[in-house]
Amino acid sequence: MRVRNKLVYILCLLSLVLRAQEKSYDTSDSLLVRAIFDEALLHGKSYNQLNYLCKAIGHRITGSPQAELALEWAQSEVSRYNVDRLMMQNVQAEHWVRGDKEWVAISEDVDLLLNACALGGSVSTDGPLQAQVVEVSGMEELSRYSAGELKGKIVFLNEPMDKSLINTFDAYGACVSQRYNGAAEAAKYGAVAVLVRSMTTLTDVKAHTGSMGYKEGIARIPAAAISTQDADILHSYIEDLGTATVTMNLSCYTAAAKVNTNNLIAEIRGSENPEKVIVFGAHIDSWDKGEGAHDDGAGVVQCMEVLRLFKAIGIKPKNTIRMVLYMNEENGNMGGKTYAAKAKADGENHICAIESDRGGFSPRGFSIDAKDSQIMTIAKWEELLEEYGLHYFKKGYSGVDIGPLKSKENRVNDNLILMGLFPDSQRYFDYHHSKDDIFENVNQRELELGGASMATMVYLMDKYWYLF
Amino acid sequence: MRVRNKLVYILCLLSLVLRAQEKSYDTSDSLLVRAIFDEALLHGKSYNQLNYLCKAIGHRITGSPQAELALEWAQSEVSRYNVDRLMMQNVQAEHWVRGDKEWVAISEDVDLLLNACALGGSVSTDGPLQAQVVEVSGMEELSRYSAGELKGKIVFLNEPMDKSLINTFDAYGACVSQRYNGAAEAAKYGAVAVLVRSMTTLTDVKAHTGSMGYKEGIARIPAAAISTQDADILHSYIEDLGTATVTMNLSCYTAAAKVNTNNLIAEIRGSENPEKVIVFGAHIDSWDKGEGAHDDGAGVVQCMEVLRLFKAIGIKPKNTIRMVLYMNEENGNMGGKTYAAKAKADGENHICAIESDRGGFSPRGFSIDAKDSQIMTIAKWEELLEEYGLHYFKKGYSGVDIGPLKSKENRVNDNLILMGLFPDSQRYFDYHHSKDDIFENVNQRELELGGASMATMVYLMDKYWYLF
Repeated sequence: MRVRNKLVYILCLLSLVLRAQEKSYDTSDSLLVRAIFDEALLHGKSYNQLNYLCKAIGHRITGSPQAELALEWAQSEVSRYNVDRLMMQNVQAEHWVRGDKEWVAISEDVDLLLNACALGGSVSTDGPLQAQVVEVSGMEELSRYSAGELKGKIVFLNEPMDKSLINTFDAYGACVSQRYNGAAEAAKYGAVAVLVRSMTTLTDVKAHTGSMGYKEGIARIPAAAISTQDADILHSYIEDLGTATVTMNLSCYTAAAKVNTNNLIAEIRGSENPEKVIVFGAHIDSWDKGEGAHDDGAGVVQCMEVLRLFKAIGIKPKNTIRMVLYMNEENGNMGGKTYAAKAKADGENHICAIESDRGGFSPRGFSIDAKDSQIMTIAKWEELLEEYGLHYFKKGYSGVDIGPLKSKENRVNDNLILMGLFPDSQRYFDYHHSKDDIFENVNQRELELGGASMATMVYLMDKYWYLF
Repeated sequence: MRVRNKLVYILCLLSLVLRAQEKSYDTSDSLLVRAIFDEALLHGKSYNQLNYLCKAIGHRITGSPQAELALEWAQSEVSRYNVDRLMMQNVQAEHWVRGDKEWVAISEDVDLLLNACALGGSVSTDGPLQAQVVEVSGMEELSRYSAGELKGKIVFLNEPMDKSLINTFDAYGACVSQRYNGAAEAAKYGAVAVLVRSMTTLTDVKAHTGSMGYKEGIARIPAAAISTQDADILHSYIEDLGTATVTMNLSCYTAAAKVNTNNLIAEIRGSENPEKVIVFGAHIDSWDKGEGAHDDGAGVVQCMEVLRLFKAIGIKPKNTIRMVLYMNEENGNMGGKTYAAKAKADGENHICAIESDRGGFSPRGFSIDAKDSQIMTIAKWEELLEEYGLHYFKKGYSGVDIGPLKSKENRVNDNLILMGLFPDSQRYFDYHHSKDDIFENVNQRELELGGASMATMVYLMDKYWYLF
C-alpha cells in the first residue's frame, strides 16, 4: 500500500470515529431533561395516582366494573392536563370470569390443597375433576407424546424459569409457552387438564396467573397454575410414589357475549407537524389478582405523568404526542389491535410508539425495535441520559400493546420506531400476575423516575424526529 | 502543515483511538465471569446467610452480644470455604447503649409523642428535659447564631434530603452534617439538646438513627432524630403557634470502658505474589434498629460469597485476596482504622481495596477512588460486564471502612485503588438506620448479583493487577 492509499484509509477510519462521536443533542436538552426529572422527583403525581388506582379501584380485568371505573378515573385525571383531544376508543373484547370455585388438591392419602389458580381464558372443570398426573419437564417433552397416550390424564408442565439469566424477561420468554400453549398441546394427546408451574423466579407459595389459549379443532381443557413451591411438592410426590392423583375444581368461564369497552386516548397536537404522531402508552386492564400495580398500573400512571410533565414544564411538541391507555392487553390484546387497525384505516403517520409495561422499577433505558441506524442515533443520547441511570439503548422487544402497529396488515410506515421502557427486571416476576402485585411493592422514586424517562424519550423523539 | 505532518498527526490520533479501544480482557474472562454469575444466581448462599444473620442474630451494634455472635457465625461459615488464613483481629471500640427510655413529645396542649430515637453517641437527657424549640433550616442557618443566643433552647435541624438528586447518596452527603455535627454546633450557642430531621428520601413515620459526634471543649448535649413526618408536624406547630415546647427523655449512654472486639479476616494466599493483597470487605456491626439487613448485612454475606464463589469455581488467585468483616463502622470506624494501621505497621502491600456498603440492591458498577488512568483501565471492562447490568465505573467515593488505608498516616502505596460496589440507590434511604432495615426488604436476586459483581471485580483486579 502506498503512502497515499494509507492516508486515505486512515482518513476514512478517522471520519468514522468522529462521526460516531457526533453529538445529537444540545445544551438546551440537558436543561430540559433536568427540568423533567426535577419536576417528577419533587412534584410527581404518579405515586399518589397509583395508590388510588390500586386501592380505590383495584384489579381490573377486561369487562369488570373496575376496568370501566379505571377508564373514567384516568379520563378525569388527564382532563386536568390541557390536552387537545381526550376520547374513548371503542374496543370489543372477551370477558373472562374466574368464578367462585378454584382449588387443586393432591388426592393421595388426605387431600393436600395446593396454591393454585385458573389460567386466564381457561374453561371450567365442570365440577371436581380427578385424574392421574403425568409430569413433563416442559413443552419439548410434551411434544414427544403421541395421540391418545395421555388419555384421561392431567399433564403437569414443570419447566422452571432459568434463574441464571440476568434479564428475567429472557427467562420468562423461554418457557412461557408452557402456560400459553400447554393445554392445547396436552389435549392433542388426550389429556383432560393441565397444571402449570407458576412463571416466577422465586420459590414461593403464590399462584401466578396469566393468559392461555386454545386452538381450533383441539379439545378445550381446563388449565391452572400452581405455585413454584407446590410444583416442587407435586414433583416430589410423583418422584417418591411413582404417581399422583389430583382433584381440581375451576368454575371459570368466558362470557357468551363480548363486552364493549374502550381505550383512552389523550393527545397534545403538534405545532409543526400535527399529522405526525408519537404514541406512548400502557395497559389499563390487569389480571384479577393483586392490584395490577406493576402490571401495568405503573405504566398507566407514568404515561399520565408524561402529559402532566409536558404541561408543567411548558413543552410544546412539534409533532402530535398521544397517550393511549390500552384495554385488554392481558387476555386478548384487543386494545392494541383496535388502535393499530384504526390508525391504519385513518392513514395516520406514526413516527414512534413507546410502551411502559415492565413494572415500575428503576429505569435503565429502552429496548428498541427499529433499524440499526435508528438505534445508533438513539443510543447517542446515552451521554445525555446516563446521569439519570439510563444506559441501555439496545435492539430488543418493545411491547405487546404497540406490537400490532408493525404487523403486516397495519404497517403504514417502514420507519416506525417501537420501544419499551426498560427498567431493572430483578423483582418483576416476584409479583407478576399474583396477589403480591400490589401498591406496597412499588417504590415511589423508582416509579417517578420511570415517568420522567418516558417523558424524556417522548421529548427527544419529538424534537429530533427528522433524524429518523 | 505539510502532508507528512498531517500524516503524523492523524496517526497519533488514530493510535489514541485504537488504544482506547484496546481490550483489556480475553475470552477466558467472559467464560469465567459467566460462571461466577451462574453459580451465584443458581446456587448462591448469600440470601440464606442474610436470613440467618438478620433473624437468628439480629441487629448488632458494637459491644452487643449479637455483634460477637455475628463474628463467630461468620467465622464458622467461612471456615467451610478452604481459606488459607482465618483469624480475628482485635479492635477496641466504644460501646454505646440506647437504654430503655427514648421519647420525644410536643408539650403544647396535650403531649403529642413523636416517632423519635436517640442518635448514636448521644448522651442522655438525665431525666425529662423540657425546653422551647428553635427551628433552623440546616447547618448554614445554625452557624449564623452567636454565643448565648440559643441558651436553654432545643434546636430543631430540619433540612430535608434533596429528592431531585438521582443518586440518593449525594442527597445524604449534602445534609448529613446536621445529624453528625448539629449538637456540637448548637451547643456552642447555648442549646440544651437537638432534634434532627431523619435522613431519608421518604416522608415516613420512622425515626432513622445514625452517628453524631461531640467536639472537645464544647458541652455535650443530647441529640435525637425524629421521623420526617413528625418533623413536618413540628414545623407546622412552630409555624402556626410561633413556638413549640418539647419534652424529651433519652437514657442512652456510652459505657465507661471500651470493649474488646474484632474484625474477621479470611484470606486465600496468592499463588504468584502472596505478598500483594487485594482486600474486600463490609461491616459486620449495624445500628440497633431493624436488622442491619441492607446496612451492612448485605455486604457481609456478599463478601463471604466471594470466597465461596472462588472455591466453587476453582479460581486460584495470583495475589492474596483477603476478606475483612469490619467491626464498628457505624459509630467510630475502629475496625477500619485498626485494620489500616496494622497493615501499615506490617508493611503490607495492598493493590486494591473494595467495599460493599450501599445496600443489597441491583448492582450497577463501582465507584472508584483512584488515578484517572487507573479508572480508565477499569472502565474498559464495561464491555465485558454490561450484560450483567454493570455500566458504572466512575471516579467517586469508595467506602468508610477502607478509607483509612489511604489516610496520610496509613498510606503505603500511592497506586492503591479503592472502590465501592455501586448498586441502585433509589430505595436505600427508605430503610437506612431504621426499624425497616430488615431481611424482608432485601431481594434475593439483587443481593446475589451484588456478590457476583464483587467476586468478578476481585477476579479481574487479581488477574490484571500488573496493569495498575
